[in-house]
Amino acid sequence: MELILNPERKQWNSLCARPTEEKQALDKTVLETMAFVKESGDTALLELTAKFDGAELDELAVSSDELAQAASEVPVDLQEAIQLATENVMKFHAPQLHEEPEVTTVQGVKCWRRSVPIEKVGLYIPGGTAPLFSTIIMLAVPAKIAGCSEIILTTPPDRDGKINPVILFTAGLLGIRKIFKLGGAQAIAALTYGTESVPAVYKIFGPGNQYVTRAKELAQQEGVAIDMPAGPSEVLVIADNTSIPEFVAADLLSQAEHGADSQVILLSDNAEIARQCLDQVEVQLNKLPRKEIAIKSLAHSKAIVLDSIEDCVSFSNLYAPEHLIISIDRARDYGGKISNAGSVFLGHLSCESAGDYASGTNH
Amino acid sequence: MELILNPERKQWNSLCARPTEEKQALDKTVLETMAFVKESGDTALLELTAKFDGAELDELAVSSDELAQAASEVPVDLQEAIQLATENVMKFHAPQLHEEPEVTTVQGVKCWRRSVPIEKVGLYIPGGTAPLFSTIIMLAVPAKIAGCSEIILTTPPDRDGKINPVILFTAGLLGIRKIFKLGGAQAIAALTYGTESVPAVYKIFGPGNQYVTRAKELAQQEGVAIDMPAGPSEVLVIADNTSIPEFVAADLLSQAEHGADSQVILLSDNAEIARQCLDQVEVQLNKLPRKEIAIKSLAHSKAIVLDSIEDCVSFSNLYAPEHLIISIDRARDYGGKISNAGSVFLGHLSCESAGDYASGTNH
Repeated sequence: MELILNPERKQWNSLCARPTEEKQALDKTVLETMAFVKESGDTALLELTAKFDGAELDELAVSSDELAQAASEVPVDLQEAIQLATENVMKFHAPQLHEEPEVTTVQGVKCWRRSVPIEKVGLYIPGGTAPLFSTIIMLAVPAKIAGCSEIILTTPPDRDGKINPVILFTAGLLGIRKIFKLGGAQAIAALTYGTESVPAVYKIFGPGNQYVTRAKELAQQEGVAIDMPAGPSEVLVIADNTSIPEFVAADLLSQAEHGADSQVILLSDNAEIARQCLDQVEVQLNKLPRKEIAIKSLAHSKAIVLDSIEDCVSFSNLYAPEHLIISIDRARDYGGKISNAGSVFLGHLSCESAGDYASGTNH
Repeated sequence: MELILNPERKQWNSLCARPTEEKQALDKTVLETMAFVKESGDTALLELTAKFDGAELDELAVSSDELAQAASEVPVDLQEAIQLATENVMKFHAPQLHEEPEVTTVQGVKCWRRSVPIEKVGLYIPGGTAPLFSTIIMLAVPAKIAGCSEIILTTPPDRDGKINPVILFTAGLLGIRKIFKLGGAQAIAALTYGTESVPAVYKIFGPGNQYVTRAKELAQQEGVAIDMPAGPSEVLVIADNTSIPEFVAADLLSQAEHGADSQVILLSDNAEIARQCLDQVEVQLNKLPRKEIAIKSLAHSKAIVLDSIEDCVSFSNLYAPEHLIISIDRARDYGGKISNAGSVFLGHLSCESAGDYASGTNH
């Protein structure tokens, strides 16, 4: 992780640039996948799942037996943690339902807005190196509260044609019964066009790799709504002389281990604290099971020392991080000055992981 | 306009299909335009404006003199109408600002959402056959209420390098001072990358032709947010034996004249009323200044008679119209049954044009 001391302000823009993604020439593959699924339905899905996931399936749908069995395979303490996380997310999201008053703009002209649930939604849960059960909570709880009548979940199977039991347990807990063993662009195609077994939906939510993202963009051109094209994940931490280097390092690493393409940024007004945080990153890095991923991410990450915390806030507003941790005393004084950020975590004890899983806010 | 009597329900899906758009092979042109503007800035913009709009400009920015002069060229009654429309839109949108309460999900864990204005927004106002001053109101009023600090407006000039004075008057009324004579993909490119004279923005709003829509999709891939990819405009009217055929026909034509690619749909439980509405369409069509456009639109439009008003509502929910007019007695009883529609107009006297311009709701 590179340390940059007091760069001039004219350098800020280039320091805010994200690492260039290697955009693969995937249009052809994705377009062919979409067209194949549109034309051949389940036949295409089974063939593509064999090809890309190495799984020979008889059925795309997860059976009620598989769903019921999943709970027995998840440790009780993890079950309880998922239950608590779900309750907190429910508690935070439920008050977001609100009705707006009718407005009479001119005598006899009554206008109002009414929010209605999207009837059919598709949730895409990536496979890969970690089971993203928290993503199910974050996508399904709002859909439940809104009252979406049909919730379809797709997630890629492993080579044995199985879904991680934690994924199934979480989906079951949230009352999702229509779960399909499908990943990649073929999953998005199925949700877009519908097949014999997978219903078409009106909006597709969820993160994914470049193939999934490109397929979602094409789905949008076919008239299906999408949440947004997801990019690599990132965190920016602002630290001062009251910060605890061990905690800041853990925050940086928790995001760095997310993916090789993640970027983490440390800003501080104090070069000594910045150095201590970087030292701690090295110490903790060696203990990480996902060390290899974190090393790749740290290679394009930066620690930047600026003249003041005000400058750190300005830089952060220019960078516009997906996640921002203000790990300083009186962090709340600065919260109101943040104009461009996704989730903001205030204080030394508010880690991004809390928001990723269980604080109640949506990741 | 084709009349279809009591189609079977299994035909509904195909009846809901939108006319196929001729998607031109415009990727190459749009990509080249974006790259040229990114590299050559104002030089590219001036060259492209000469090429596509036929206007040789010295300055891209509208001068304060041009802005000041515009008012004198707009008839006073139109000025007053625009003023009233703006006030109504303000009145309806202002209460949409609301603060959410802090939620304590677990002891010591306080979570809240804070909406912040997007600092820099770009509004694209199309040129073409009609000056879309209402679009300025619909885009700029929410930006003003939200508190966006920088509002940039671009709209293509005519061959003399001028902007329609009604556009300038409306922008001036809304306090927009940064107006550029720019249309097409080059306008979107300028807002995406910024040039010597046009500031880059964080989000781009507004309708446009296929070049503009494709450029907005590419802007999104460059990290700039967009509102949504806009398609052709449309209206669906539900009529019964209490409807006034003259009014229904006027509603259908008001949308048909919008663009040759617009689609209008009439649903009724009463074949006689449907026929009367279609007769009125023919009568009024001949009086329309934009008759030629409306004829093209009507060629792919339909009147469909169904068994009941309940069926009309079901069909409408399947079609999901951008604009829906329920032109029946006790229309409000049905308003709550609409699950898929943009703006809904209730009753015989609620025309879409009211919402397009002046009722206060956003079009």
